[in-house]
Amino acid sequence: MGITADTIVAPATPSGYGGISVVRISGSSTKKIAKAISLLPNGQKPDYKPQYTTRALIIEKSGKTFDDGLITFYKSPNSYTGEDSLEISCHGNPSIVQKIIERCCEEGARPAEPGEFTRRSFLNGKIDLLQAEAVASLIYSKSIESTSLSHKILQGTLSESINKIKTSLLDSLSQIEFELDFSEENLQPDLKKSLLLKITISITEFRNLLNTYKSASLMIRGALVVIAGKPNVGKSTLLNTFSGVDRAITNSRPGTTRDTIETQILLSGIPVRLVDTAGLRNNARGTEKEGVLRAKKALIDADLVLYLYSVNKKNIIEKKHTCEKPALHIINKCDLLSEDSLNKIKTNYPDFLFLSAKKGTGIGPLSSDIKNALALSPSLSSGVALTTARQEKELSSAEKYLTSALRLLHNKNPEYELVSFEILSSLEKTNSLLGIENTDEVIDRIFSSFCVGK
Amino acid sequence: MGITADTIVAPATPSGYGGISVVRISGSSTKKIAKAISLLPNGQKPDYKPQYTTRALIIEKSGKTFDDGLITFYKSPNSYTGEDSLEISCHGNPSIVQKIIERCCEEGARPAEPGEFTRRSFLNGKIDLLQAEAVASLIYSKSIESTSLSHKILQGTLSESINKIKTSLLDSLSQIEFELDFSEENLQPDLKKSLLLKITISITEFRNLLNTYKSASLMIRGALVVIAGKPNVGKSTLLNTFSGVDRAITNSRPGTTRDTIETQILLSGIPVRLVDTAGLRNNARGTEKEGVLRAKKALIDADLVLYLYSVNKKNIIEKKHTCEKPALHIINKCDLLSEDSLNKIKTNYPDFLFLSAKKGTGIGPLSSDIKNALALSPSLSSGVALTTARQEKELSSAEKYLTSALRLLHNKNPEYELVSFEILSSLEKTNSLLGIENTDEVIDRIFSSFCVGK
Repeated sequence: MGITADTIVAPATPSGYGGISVVRISGSSTKKIAKAISLLPNGQKPDYKPQYTTRALIIEKSGKTFDDGLITFYKSPNSYTGEDSLEISCHGNPSIVQKIIERCCEEGARPAEPGEFTRRSFLNGKIDLLQAEAVASLIYSKSIESTSLSHKILQGTLSESINKIKTSLLDSLSQIEFELDFSEENLQPDLKKSLLLKITISITEFRNLLNTYKSASLMIRGALVVIAGKPNVGKSTLLNTFSGVDRAITNSRPGTTRDTIETQILLSGIPVRLVDTAGLRNNARGTEKEGVLRAKKALIDADLVLYLYSVNKKNIIEKKHTCEKPALHIINKCDLLSEDSLNKIKTNYPDFLFLSAKKGTGIGPLSSDIKNALALSPSLSSGVALTTARQEKELSSAEKYLTSALRLLHNKNPEYELVSFEILSSLEKTNSLLGIENTDEVIDRIFSSFCVGK
Repeated sequence: MGITADTIVAPATPSGYGGISVVRISGSSTKKIAKAISLLPNGQKPDYKPQYTTRALIIEKSGKTFDDGLITFYKSPNSYTGEDSLEISCHGNPSIVQKIIERCCEEGARPAEPGEFTRRSFLNGKIDLLQAEAVASLIYSKSIESTSLSHKILQGTLSESINKIKTSLLDSLSQIEFELDFSEENLQPDLKKSLLLKITISITEFRNLLNTYKSASLMIRGALVVIAGKPNVGKSTLLNTFSGVDRAITNSRPGTTRDTIETQILLSGIPVRLVDTAGLRNNARGTEKEGVLRAKKALIDADLVLYLYSVNKKNIIEKKHTCEKPALHIINKCDLLSEDSLNKIKTNYPDFLFLSAKKGTGIGPLSSDIKNALALSPSLSSGVALTTARQEKELSSAEKYLTSALRLLHNKNPEYELVSFEILSSLEKTNSLLGIENTDEVIDRIFSSFCVGK
């Protein structure tokens, strides 16, 4: 399939200025295009051998050189996509990358869609859908702990677990089919017991997997923690203290922060995006009003909100904020209070945290509280975890169908046709999870476990 | 020299999330380190063949895998640095890149200094200093026109021109040495005429090169154009109109822009960094004062300042701004004026430009005026141009010494020892330009043009 596909081209490295950038080409015209846009330093036409790196000049249609680079050719099927493909390592400059892509397109390639190389790898059977998703997670993981998790999934740990459950479901289906075909003969006296055991185990395995989703997805995409509160309670100062640099401009006048400002921190290997927002007040106008709108938008996306408060001269705080998101409520500027006042306030506000963002007092305990509030668990080292919403949705459905099957099995005289139908539905969802849309193989498997001639 | 050097490691691609990232290693332990941090997918230890790309797992000291990648080995001297070196193409994630670098350092490498790979390439005689500088220019060039220029210099166009002048200077020196040795015999009756011609030509060539510096360096590093003016004259609107996107928050209230905001535009292939600043007013306080300070700092670095003005109800503008930088003075918001008023103002302010940043009127002519004011000339396609301050300084000195030589030669009876000294000084500067600190080769060349036995 890949061999006849059109040829695609895209930058493979992040955009920016650096030592080198890499452009990737894949498809049947790869070699033809490479020969058209490059020339050996001695002026001869290059002949690209598989997996061999050749230094070449990169040339315009007119023959004018605009860069030189290292070109490595990968012959189908021994490439990432499974097609003929090529990597051009040029000088690290976006203008050069853009020019190379233009040149490839002049010679018959087209710009690749997002994820199209991995999609071809999947379509050519090099990886399944879970592995394809792990490629994306691996790239966007924000810590080495989360990249390790994604890499394990890419290596097939999750697929293996799912396939093990699939095998058990297929076995159950075979047993039921056998029963239905030979129902008068009672060849499987322990059928119900056997099925109950297998399906209960599979349901447990599904549920264990579903339980990994929240932690694993937070680990991959990073948690979004939003700092909110009235103007001048020290939100930007808290962001600065966390990030250790003067990321936000702070000022003693209220309303200093207008845009939302973001920094990233790691809490025991878990990437946390910390966002500072404009002070929430209702009478804001103009640009400040725009800032308040952005703050409210950030709250919608938040995994956790840190509400900051400061006490007034009577040692009381404003009204406690409420929102639908998990939140921590923190009284800041404790360095300005006498020990006596602070103790009184602590008694009056027992479910609040106490902090001096300016002095850094209380930052350690706050970090722990954030980790607890997010229920972050870095213990996913087995590499068997769900990381995408699609996976969670498909596996949820698979689990629901199987739970129905179990319920039906618990009847005194189970209707095995109905049980079979629920297991088959669960299996279909499991296949969707792996990216297998058709169920031919399910049918094949069932009949192949039967004896020949039947 | 490279063979015994310590082994260095660094990311070779820009930091960020993408398809792949590349880590580069160079030095005598390269192969040893590669073997320690990688494993073939079949679990065997890899054996890296020169210029051959191998797929391998990347492993922790414990043997645990954290990524997989493509590893290409380059054997000394056939590598960029001239040493044994290696490129690891891993998944495009900064956490993975950092981890690979840590692993290499665990196995005996050290993080490379900025430019150290190219420095080793220079020290190992793969390129001269002009070419080494072209590598940096090539990477930081902001348009394909400027990368093409840098690539030509990297290919040796500028070095060739300089070497041609060097040859002529060495010839002159040889002639003088010969004259001084055999002064009684008058073997070179046309010596003075010949030297005058050669040196005049060389001086012209030096001056032509020096004349390329301003354009070429602006072309490489990009011009910095700063938009300045009193609050609320439409500076952010002008930046937005130029960049075609809402980069800066605009607002009808004065003092909206506090940080300096930057965008990049291309004016006929010339990269121009356009910076919007906070309105300049003396009574600014707090955060706004900080913004005014940043605006003043931007003015110091500017290649060109665009001063914006608006007219009051009496159709007059505030006092004209003055600064030491090249500047254009622009009356904005012309869309708010009647045709009659506009004509009057144009008569009263003949050296001003007229614009409506909001409506986009007058943006075309302003672009032309910016190009003219910066004296940008994209006609450096020969690739013979000076792009760095160092080059300009060395060549300036070389030119000055040679001009002294010419002055001495114009004397009725030139003192050839002195002329020779000035030419030698010029040659030394030319060698410095190419990165040749010692002058042994100069001496060699002089005596080799003499006959054997003398």
